[in-house]
Amino acid sequence: MTADDLVSLRRDLHRKPEPAWREFYTTARIVEELEARLGDDITLHVGPDALATDRRLAVPDEPELTHAYQRALETDADEATLERLEGGYTGAVAVLERGEGPTVGLRVDIDGLPRAESDNTEHVPAAEGFRSEHDGAMHACGHDAHATIGVGVLERIANSDDFSGTLKVFFQPAEEVIGGAKSMAESDHIEDVDSLLAMHIGLDHPTGEIVAGIDGFLAVRHLEAEFTGEPAHAGGHPEQGRNAVQALATAVQNLYAIPRHNDGATRVNAGLVEGGSASNVIPESARTVVEVRGETTELMEYMTEKSRRVLRSAAEMHDCEVEIEIGAEAPSATSDQELVSIVEDVAGGVAGVDSVLERDELGGSEDATYLMQAVQENGGKACYVGVGTDHPGGHHTATFDVDEASIQHGVDTLAGAIERIGRGR
Amino acid sequence: MTADDLVSLRRDLHRKPEPAWREFYTTARIVEELEARLGDDITLHVGPDALATDRRLAVPDEPELTHAYQRALETDADEATLERLEGGYTGAVAVLERGEGPTVGLRVDIDGLPRAESDNTEHVPAAEGFRSEHDGAMHACGHDAHATIGVGVLERIANSDDFSGTLKVFFQPAEEVIGGAKSMAESDHIEDVDSLLAMHIGLDHPTGEIVAGIDGFLAVRHLEAEFTGEPAHAGGHPEQGRNAVQALATAVQNLYAIPRHNDGATRVNAGLVEGGSASNVIPESARTVVEVRGETTELMEYMTEKSRRVLRSAAEMHDCEVEIEIGAEAPSATSDQELVSIVEDVAGGVAGVDSVLERDELGGSEDATYLMQAVQENGGKACYVGVGTDHPGGHHTATFDVDEASIQHGVDTLAGAIERIGRGR
Amino acid sequence: MTADDLVSLRRDLHRKPEPAWREFYTTARIVEELEARLGDDITLHVGPDALATDRRLAVPDEPELTHAYQRALETDADEATLERLEGGYTGAVAVLERGEGPTVGLRVDIDGLPRAESDNTEHVPAAEGFRSEHDGAMHACGHDAHATIGVGVLERIANSDDFSGTLKVFFQPAEEVIGGAKSMAESDHIEDVDSLLAMHIGLDHPTGEIVAGIDGFLAVRHLEAEFTGEPAHAGGHPEQGRNAVQALATAVQNLYAIPRHNDGATRVNAGLVEGGSASNVIPESARTVVEVRGETTELMEYMTEKSRRVLRSAAEMHDCEVEIEIGAEAPSATSDQELVSIVEDVAGGVAGVDSVLERDELGGSEDATYLMQAVQENGGKACYVGVGTDHPGGHHTATFDVDEASIQHGVDTLAGAIERIGRGR
Amino acid sequence: MTADDLVSLRRDLHRKPEPAWREFYTTARIVEELEARLGDDITLHVGPDALATDRRLAVPDEPELTHAYQRALETDADEATLERLEGGYTGAVAVLERGEGPTVGLRVDIDGLPRAESDNTEHVPAAEGFRSEHDGAMHACGHDAHATIGVGVLERIANSDDFSGTLKVFFQPAEEVIGGAKSMAESDHIEDVDSLLAMHIGLDHPTGEIVAGIDGFLAVRHLEAEFTGEPAHAGGHPEQGRNAVQALATAVQNLYAIPRHNDGATRVNAGLVEGGSASNVIPESARTVVEVRGETTELMEYMTEKSRRVLRSAAEMHDCEVEIEIGAEAPSATSDQELVSIVEDVAGGVAGVDSVLERDELGGSEDATYLMQAVQENGGKACYVGVGTDHPGGHHTATFDVDEASIQHGVDTLAGAIERIGRGR
Repeated sequence: MTADDLVSLRRDLHRKPEPAWREFYTTARIVEELEARLGDDITLHVGPDALATDRRLAVPDEPELTHAYQRALETDADEATLERLEGGYTGAVAVLERGEGPTVGLRVDIDGLPRAESDNTEHVPAAEGFRSEHDGAMHACGHDAHATIGVGVLERIANSDDFSGTLKVFFQPAEEVIGGAKSMAESDHIEDVDSLLAMHIGLDHPTGEIVAGIDGFLAVRHLEAEFTGEPAHAGGHPEQGRNAVQALATAVQNLYAIPRHNDGATRVNAGLVEGGSASNVIPESARTVVEVRGETTELMEYMTEKSRRVLRSAAEMHDCEVEIEIGAEAPSATSDQELVSIVEDVAGGVAGVDSVLERDELGGSEDATYLMQAVQENGGKACYVGVGTDHPGGHHTATFDVDEASIQHGVDTLAGAIERIGRGR
Repeated sequence: MTADDLVSLRRDLHRKPEPAWREFYTTARIVEELEARLGDDITLHVGPDALATDRRLAVPDEPELTHAYQRALETDADEATLERLEGGYTGAVAVLERGEGPTVGLRVDIDGLPRAESDNTEHVPAAEGFRSEHDGAMHACGHDAHATIGVGVLERIANSDDFSGTLKVFFQPAEEVIGGAKSMAESDHIEDVDSLLAMHIGLDHPTGEIVAGIDGFLAVRHLEAEFTGEPAHAGGHPEQGRNAVQALATAVQNLYAIPRHNDGATRVNAGLVEGGSASNVIPESARTVVEVRGETTELMEYMTEKSRRVLRSAAEMHDCEVEIEIGAEAPSATSDQELVSIVEDVAGGVAGVDSVLERDELGGSEDATYLMQAVQENGGKACYVGVGTDHPGGHHTATFDVDEASIQHGVDTLAGAIERIGRGR
Repeated sequence: MTADDLVSLRRDLHRKPEPAWREFYTTARIVEELEARLGDDITLHVGPDALATDRRLAVPDEPELTHAYQRALETDADEATLERLEGGYTGAVAVLERGEGPTVGLRVDIDGLPRAESDNTEHVPAAEGFRSEHDGAMHACGHDAHATIGVGVLERIANSDDFSGTLKVFFQPAEEVIGGAKSMAESDHIEDVDSLLAMHIGLDHPTGEIVAGIDGFLAVRHLEAEFTGEPAHAGGHPEQGRNAVQALATAVQNLYAIPRHNDGATRVNAGLVEGGSASNVIPESARTVVEVRGETTELMEYMTEKSRRVLRSAAEMHDCEVEIEIGAEAPSATSDQELVSIVEDVAGGVAGVDSVLERDELGGSEDATYLMQAVQENGGKACYVGVGTDHPGGHHTATFDVDEASIQHGVDTLAGAIERIGRGR
Repeated sequence: MTADDLVSLRRDLHRKPEPAWREFYTTARIVEELEARLGDDITLHVGPDALATDRRLAVPDEPELTHAYQRALETDADEATLERLEGGYTGAVAVLERGEGPTVGLRVDIDGLPRAESDNTEHVPAAEGFRSEHDGAMHACGHDAHATIGVGVLERIANSDDFSGTLKVFFQPAEEVIGGAKSMAESDHIEDVDSLLAMHIGLDHPTGEIVAGIDGFLAVRHLEAEFTGEPAHAGGHPEQGRNAVQALATAVQNLYAIPRHNDGATRVNAGLVEGGSASNVIPESARTVVEVRGETTELMEYMTEKSRRVLRSAAEMHDCEVEIEIGAEAPSATSDQELVSIVEDVAGGVAGVDSVLERDELGGSEDATYLMQAVQENGGKACYVGVGTDHPGGHHTATFDVDEASIQHGVDTLAGAIERIGRGR
């Protein structure tokens, strides 16, 4: 793919951002591009064939899925492909077999975010006409570039004389809700992967900078808690109520007050709360989505256990019931030095790359860790690579954008590293 | 009006329940009925002419008003009347002048509730085909009967030889949100009222029972508090957030903990809370609607003052701002013995009435108190009358219904009392 | 007893105020006075003989009892009497049998308060040399006058030709901690009482005013809660602690937030809290004394049940244990009209009494209700009488004092009522 | 000093543990020992001469100081020395001048802890007769060994041919309350120190192990908050109170809930709370001692600022006042590599030392950081050395004890490093 091809594909995806499990057009477009470029050279596992279908997390409601699916049907996307994705089974695994050698995985995520994109004329996508066509949705974290890099790497390796082995590219849905990686990590496709590369663009690193190995992924879990009490007339019989909002408030106060842990960083956030129905009714129901994180999976489990205790006791204090469900989760992970060294070495020779950092910390969460953990548990190696890009707005903001030159840096670095791994170094 | 006329009007109104400030069809239907029956005998002040238009409380959003207005336009209601109501200026004051004598007011409220009606076949409106035609709305508190009684009383007095003076019937909107009475109490119409009767059907009193004077209205006020902080990534930079949900939770805990007061009963309820946007974002906004009440207006002011302090300090504690707006309110009130005695005496002679209580306590709130207070401050008398009815479900529940026989009891008792007042006793 | 005798006895008791269960000198002095005046006419049940000894509530620690006991030994009080009181078994029941007729009880309480008395020269006891000789203790609620009235009434009835029956005077200890009445109410002495009078001086009524029947006693209970967790180094291993102070704080917030009750007034107060050992140790223990009250005994039970739930859930939330003990309690009670009428009638004829109120509300708590309840449950009648006195400072303040003229009013009113009861009216 | 001399001095100090600012005997005994061994070779700055007297933190009350002072007067300690210490001006700086060269500081702390010592016969001090003679006080953190090492090092250097320069040993009081170092760090004595060594025995390192450089000191600060409200009768007029215990509880809940910080570890603990006077009085006062820590001084300042906001807003919420005072504090600090390397190198050659670690983390707080910071800000170097010792019980427990062989390791390592520094390496 030429640099223009990469830009063109990225812009096409940028126009049609699709949040978690609704990547209908996106998946079909990737499949179409791969089939056009590589034809029979690759094997494509699409939608349900790419996933352990009962392991999807944080899947949206039926109406939201249907709305997005209908919208995709109105595009020029291949209808046969779309039909395979119906119901929110999105994403794909592309497999390229090139003889003897290790199986190398590359994971790129493909979903957009449920937020509106800036229409300011200083925002390049607005100025150059590829701003989001989907109201209230946006590629505000660069996954359009990620998907493009995945296609670019596949094509490069398909045409390379320098790779022997198998390359699998995981076009993963639903990263933003930490909901997609688990179902790919528990599919068959990951089992024979010896080395896995994952990647992210940006992360406050400028164009021309590569981070060979990113660590510091916080393990994360979402707890959805639903309190149920008993309504009562707030004027007439307050004593007959069992107040779910009081339970919620008590829980929130004590969740944030879970003791800090000496083994490392922890996080907790009651990021969403709602409760009650009217000002004159003692609230009979309330809910919150609580996110806990830990520097290690153990620390995240500690926060989970403490949060459950707080939620249960808060309910009991106000004579309410509480149901707690796990919404989504991802473990912690570490990049293996062996792969970090390869990427570091390769990146040093990539045109346009003028700065290579060996390691950096993410300080957030990413469900690529599910795939990394699966590979490492099977005795393989994993590494998470950062590809710098000048981005005007921060990640997840309305003015986020990538410097398209960095797409090429990503393809070159990753393809180079994959070749090196395929040569047995 | 015959008993059948009353039932027929009530059922027509029951089919088209309209919550606060959306009583378009209801008002038009009342106007139409009065014009048909009384023609030039009465003067009608409709919509904005019935209200101090800048004193409406708890008015819904434009889209909700528009939706209800459009719905009314599709009925057979008189379009000219509807146009006068556009924008949510509903209700009417009907004035009947019958010579020298006191000005007597009668207040009936006309709004429905935003809740679905039962479709169980044991629920009479469902069985007999006059269940609500408006999804998610219902006359679940008997205001359809109230409006009917208002029309019935007007017709009776218009045809009475036993009344000398002026009768004003206040068809009041938006009682359920304690939002309508203030704008009628501050209109010119109340100023010359010497004696005011207000009424409610049901209240756990059976058909055939009349309560001559109801007291124990809790003064009430709604405080809408909006907390604004600063979002931040919950994993990456929790310290950069200013957490509006923490402020909300702190406020809720301390609102319920406002000290009890030795002067009498108080109430507080955070009946509605919501906050945050996503589990991984430190919440930047949160809101609650708090209802405070007091056995006296002073006690309600005490609760208001304490609540404001709690809300402000909770915001400050978490470095947030808070905007507090008064949503709706109503004072306390007492029924004057002079009118209570008249009603008690008259009710004893009404056909079908077999039990007359002198007094009872409401233990809740009602914005009729605004009108009662206005009259009493002007040196007049006021009285709130209870008209018993067997009601299968409780007030505000899906199976609430009235025994239609009680409509006649209401007309007879109130018209009789008005005549007695008009004769100067 | 002459007016001078009454004043002299009152001042003697005033000099030696003894708080709950330490009324050693006080009891001995009363016994001495009764024996000197009435000798064999009365039977005295002293200390353990006056009580159900295992029903004492809120007994102070051994060292405090010992300190007070030693102090009493250094006075001129009769040592033999003191020995019977050792260990905090204070108080007495004096029985005067005067032939056939009803058994009438009179309850007077005798304990002082643990607070310093004013030494301002405008404070009469300071000016006239009978200020408290006990550091940090004071008769700041008039129980010195109560005890004196008890003696005065006994002497009056002993010398009366107008009484037939039995008179029992209960000199009750430990009212201020609501700790003494239960053990007298569960002793044999109350069982045959047909009519019980209890009394209090002051209560914001002036000298010359008598309240024939006081009601509105709030039922009260003290809950002593002790939280136990696990200490940990606050810097090194905060996660290893189980924080009893967090449990305490959560409990306090939620105790005050127990829903108000539509059946009447309730109260709650965490009047005493303490916890932790050092700023660098996660607190392993904490305690609070919670007082709940209710306008009825049922409301007090409601508050108790809710408080227990809050305390238990707060402990569980922070992985702590909590022990909850009942410290003291008293029910609600009502004065019987039959006795109220007698007192009202008699008081009208007492010299110096110029105002008689039939009824008033206390709005606080008093453990005389235990004795009233016991008598009423046995089919007898009870009445709580207020004896007005001009008091410069409020009850329980450093400048409280009584107008000694009112002591005579108390003797005359109560003795008069007892005679009337004894005559069978 | 022979090994026996060291043991003998340590045991003498162990018998008379004196907590913060009460090290009267301890200081006098150190002074006596130094004068006996070194006479005119050293200059001694004792008590107020060793301190910036107005910079002492966490000084106990007068009665506690007097009690400890009187106790010291009854020993054989030199009365003239004691008199210089009166009022709690304890500690000393010993200066040994040995010609041209750098000024080297050594800081040893000397205070005991307010906790009882085990009398179990398996506890060596109990078995061998040098258990604490002071009830409720104990050398439970090895500062008896620290003081001994300070004396030992001074004598060794005084007799060394291998040191040129000046040695200052800071015998620091009040480390356990992080109260003493500030006043030494702001005295003149620290100003010319070029290199500072501080040390601690134990810390879970076994006998024979030396840690050349300890880091990871959490900066710490104590905030003493006093809430003042208004009392009221909890039954009669709860609304008249301004409840300091509610303010306290609100503060505690929100203190623990201060957001975690992405820059590193933070800590918060409300280690001590108390409030209220009696169960039937709305509490008018309450207090807490809050400890905050941070991995850096900036993080500790962040926690301080947030805590102040919480405390102030909680007071305001309940209409109370709050006074916040800084009780004690210490910054974070890092050991300079230059000195770490010297200590590491020297320790390797010390008899009995079989394990040398370059670095370890403390994970707690220590006010030596004040002195380290002062030296480093003046352009000097500082290093905190760990001297392993087998200790049966943990630090601050009743069975803590040191393996006396490690005292010699401490003297040898520190004196060796000081010589090396004095030789200019």
